[in-house]
Order: sequence, then structure tokens, then C-alpha cells
Amino acid sequence: MSAAVTQENGLDLAHWMQPMLADIEQALSRWVGVEAPEQLGEAMRYAVLDGGKRLRPLLVLAACEAVGGRRDAALRAACAVELIHAYSLVHDDMPCMDNDVLRRGKPTVHVRFGEAQALLAGDALQALAFELIAPAEGEAAQVPAAMQARLCSLLARAAGARGMAGGQAIDLASVGLQLSEDQLRQMHRLKTGALLQGSVLMGAACGETGDATREALAAYGAALGLAFQVVDDILDVVADSATLGKTAGKDAAADKPTYVSLMGLEGARAYADQLAQEAHAALARCGLADTRALAALADQVIRRSH
Amino acid sequence: MSAAVTQENGLDLAHWMQPMLADIEQALSRWVGVEAPEQLGEAMRYAVLDGGKRLRPLLVLAACEAVGGRRDAALRAACAVELIHAYSLVHDDMPCMDNDVLRRGKPTVHVRFGEAQALLAGDALQALAFELIAPAEGEAAQVPAAMQARLCSLLARAAGARGMAGGQAIDLASVGLQLSEDQLRQMHRLKTGALLQGSVLMGAACGETGDATREALAAYGAALGLAFQVVDDILDVVADSATLGKTAGKDAAADKPTYVSLMGLEGARAYADQLAQEAHAALARCGLADTRALAALADQVIRRSH
Repeated sequence: MSAAVTQENGLDLAHWMQPMLADIEQALSRWVGVEAPEQLGEAMRYAVLDGGKRLRPLLVLAACEAVGGRRDAALRAACAVELIHAYSLVHDDMPCMDNDVLRRGKPTVHVRFGEAQALLAGDALQALAFELIAPAEGEAAQVPAAMQARLCSLLARAAGARGMAGGQAIDLASVGLQLSEDQLRQMHRLKTGALLQGSVLMGAACGETGDATREALAAYGAALGLAFQVVDDILDVVADSATLGKTAGKDAAADKPTYVSLMGLEGARAYADQLAQEAHAALARCGLADTRALAALADQVIRRSH
Repeated sequence: MSAAVTQENGLDLAHWMQPMLADIEQALSRWVGVEAPEQLGEAMRYAVLDGGKRLRPLLVLAACEAVGGRRDAALRAACAVELIHAYSLVHDDMPCMDNDVLRRGKPTVHVRFGEAQALLAGDALQALAFELIAPAEGEAAQVPAAMQARLCSLLARAAGARGMAGGQAIDLASVGLQLSEDQLRQMHRLKTGALLQGSVLMGAACGETGDATREALAAYGAALGLAFQVVDDILDVVADSATLGKTAGKDAAADKPTYVSLMGLEGARAYADQLAQEAHAALARCGLADTRALAALADQVIRRSH
């Protein structure tokens, strides 16, 4: 994340994030690939560590903080959701999908470790996500079972055919097609939105919340998730590969429908701003005392330059 | 499974299995791929339905029955473990892994639906496994949360880097190498054993059991898991592709170490018999009143001809 700090809501986001990010990195380093066979573990760690903005884990921790939830459960959920994100990138980059060779400025996992190992590393990362959420007895037995079950349910739904994997399948089937705005929104709601919204809901599930709060946080997560994709489409057009740390312009090159191709650049920017306002409006009605970190993360998503 | 029935322990296995298999097929058909985008759902159902001996689900249900556990939880766990097995076959068959075109007598998923869709279908099947185990509130809220959390933990561990995916990674790294019997056993303990043993433990987790019972069932599952692989290696040598429903002789062709290459055919057969005896001995000390179905399933594994 950039050093430019959102201060308008009274929260120094960079200051808030610092210990959160340190905890996330430390936990990921402690949990990922350490008990795996050598090459597999190395590929898993390569895919996850030392890269990424950790937006999804930060959303989990911010939502947990907003509801006054259990930090130990949230840290596990935060890492779990990042593992799902990381595995999806590994598989997405493979030759049979996007065939991308560069990710976060480094060779992609299949370039570095071979396709078979990349496939397995992605598979193992998904399993590990659920292992983190439901640790074996003894390891984190203090997290209530009902919370573990709820987190498992939310993560599985966000990751699967009704979530991320389903969105990727729609994306795959839509190359070269003319999608309506509704169809494009539905694709992205699943492909990137489900896991971002799931992050917020998982953070909230680490505490006690009423239905109205949960619904407002779900609306916040949905708006933020769509905004993220709209900004991604904008950046794919306006930024270069060095800034992005991945291949720029590839959506247009692949003839994929995007918000920019549908609305034009200015139209997409206006839509991103509108979604930011929706996210803030949802926070305003969620009934929680302090949602400043969630608000600042939404602003960060809109303003990010890479 | 064949019509030849193990009757020596007083249980008609075919008769016992019939309603179990009907429930498993019906549940899989109800749960797999139905709310997925069209092509993805089709690929998921193709990978799972109308094929397979359902050994893992039967182990879950038999273990649940032996401990007097909850049938509703066990049916979910049974389907979940089959989805993990099915996804591993889809990914295993892909060109970057075994590059196999025939599975259960049908074209493999990537041949039928393309590589990208096969990759996504496998990913979505793994997520769905965990979704089945931890259903959203309302759907199966009667399964105690502690049971859901325990099932999630067991399944994740059996599927991941310390289980199936880890075993596949060792397998990948061992092609062309001379493995010792210990190394071969460790690979198979993870690659196929972990999920078979996990099936038994998940069935047991659907009820209340003491530590001694759980340990004995774990020993049963470990012996059965190894026996399964030894028999698989034997069949790879002695059976033809039509009987197997998959390409025969491919381990030897790929220069993969097997129990037959290590022990010879007769040695491997003797080892399978010894493992069957270990499985029965474990059942004899588990302290449960009726383990006939588990015993008969172990015999079936040793005797199966396809």
C-alpha cells in the first residue's frame, strides 16, 4: 500500500495497518508450507510470502475489530482467505488459463517450479486454508467450534462454484463475447467480489453481530468488491506492467469484457466513486461504533495506483 | 464392487452397501454442480457422478455406523471425501501431471471440457467438499458445530500438504528414483492412505468415541490405505485397461517405483495379505460391538479385481 495515508476519518491507516501486516506476515510464514514435502512447501511459500497487498486479510482483521471479535480466530481466517487468493493466482497464471509469466514482479509459480508442482501447490494451499480455520484439537482449541464451523462455511462458499471459482468459469466462457453491464457485474461479483465480501463477513463472524449489522457489512463488502474490480480494469488500461507488477493491458489483448470497455475510462472512474459512496453508506448504517479502518480500506481500494 | 460377497463374518456386504450407495449417489447428485455456472457445473458433475466404487464414502458410513454416530453428518462427510478424491483425479489426469485420457472408461475431464475448465472444476470440487461439511445455517443446522469443525479439520489435513497433495508431490519428485520400501510407504501413506484413513476417522467423528477406539480405527485405516495401494500396484501389472477402466501398465511405463517393482508380484501379494490381517487385528481391539462392515470393506479392497 502507498505511504499516502487516508486521514480524513481520523484514522491513520498506515499506522493502523503496520502491526496488522506484521502479524499477517508472521502468521503466514509460520503456517505455510512448513510441514510439506520439500519442493511442494517451497512452491507454497513462494506463492504466498513476500508479496501482495494483503487486502483480504486486512479486511478480515478490520471487520473483526469493528465487531469486537476474537483476534486469534480472525488471524487464522485472515491467513486462510489469503491462501485462497494466492492459490487462485497460481492456478490462474498457468498456461491453460491466463498463461502469465510475471506476478508481483517475479516469475509465476509454474515458471519457477513447473506446472505440475504449481497445480499441486495451489491445491495444497486451498486445503491449508481450511486447516487453518479448523485447527486440530490442542493447537487453537480455544476458538469456539461454532465460530470455526461458520468460518469454514463462509470461506467454502466464497471460494467455490457459487463464488470465486464460479466467477472464473464465467470469465472463461465470456472471452470474445459482448456482455451486458448486468452480466459483467454478476461475473465480477463472483470472481473477485465473493472473496472480498467473504473476508468482511468472516471478520464479522469472529464476533457477535445482529442480522442488520451483518447485512450492512455484506453490502459494504459487495460494494468494495465491485469497486476493486472496476479499479483493476482501469489500472489494466492506464498503468504499465512495471507499476502493476504483472502484465498490463492483457484484458484488452485477450478481448475480455471490462468496465472500461463497457463504460469508457471516465464512466468507469465515476462508477468506482459511486461504489465507494455505497460502501461508506453501508458502514454508516451498520450500527458499529468504529468502522474507520473499514472505511479507510475502501478509500484505499479506490485510490490505489498499483 | 463385484457381486461376489464377503459372507464369512456374517455380513452380506452387497446387501449392506446397496442402500448406502443409493444414498451416496442421490446426495452427490443433489449437491454437486447444481448451483454452479453451466459449463463448470457440468464438468463437476461429469467428474463425480455415475462412476467410481465409492470406497471412501462407504468407509465413512461404515465407521459412523460402527460408532453409532449421526447419519446426516456422515452422509455429508461421505460426499465431501468423495469430492476430494474426484478433484484429485481430475487434476491428476491433466497433461501437466499424468496426461491421461481415459478414466472409469470415459474421456477424462480435460479431454471432454478443456484444461482450463478441468482445473476450475477440480478447484470448485475441493471448495464444495468443505461447504458440504459446514453447511450454512438452516440447511443442516442440526449437525453440532463441534462435529462440523472436527470434520473440517480431518478433511483438510487428509487432503493437504501433510496428506494427499503432499503424497502426490513426493510421487512427482520420485519418478525415475530408486526409493526404499520406507520411502515408498511414506509416499503412499500420504498419497492414497491419508484420505482413506481420513474417511474412517471422519466416520468415527460423527459419533462419540474414546481415544483407544479412535487409535484402533486409525490403525485400521492406515493398514487399509496401504493395502489399497499395494493392490493398485498389483492390478497395474496384472490387469488390462478395459478391466481397470483406466490405462494399465502406466506406472511401469513412467518408471515409477511400485510395490511390485520393489517386492515382486508374489511379495506384494503377501504384503497385501499381511496388511489385511493388521486391519482386522485393529478392528478386533477397537472395542466396538459391530465392525463387520469395516471388516468386509477391508477384505473387498484386497480381493477387488478392478
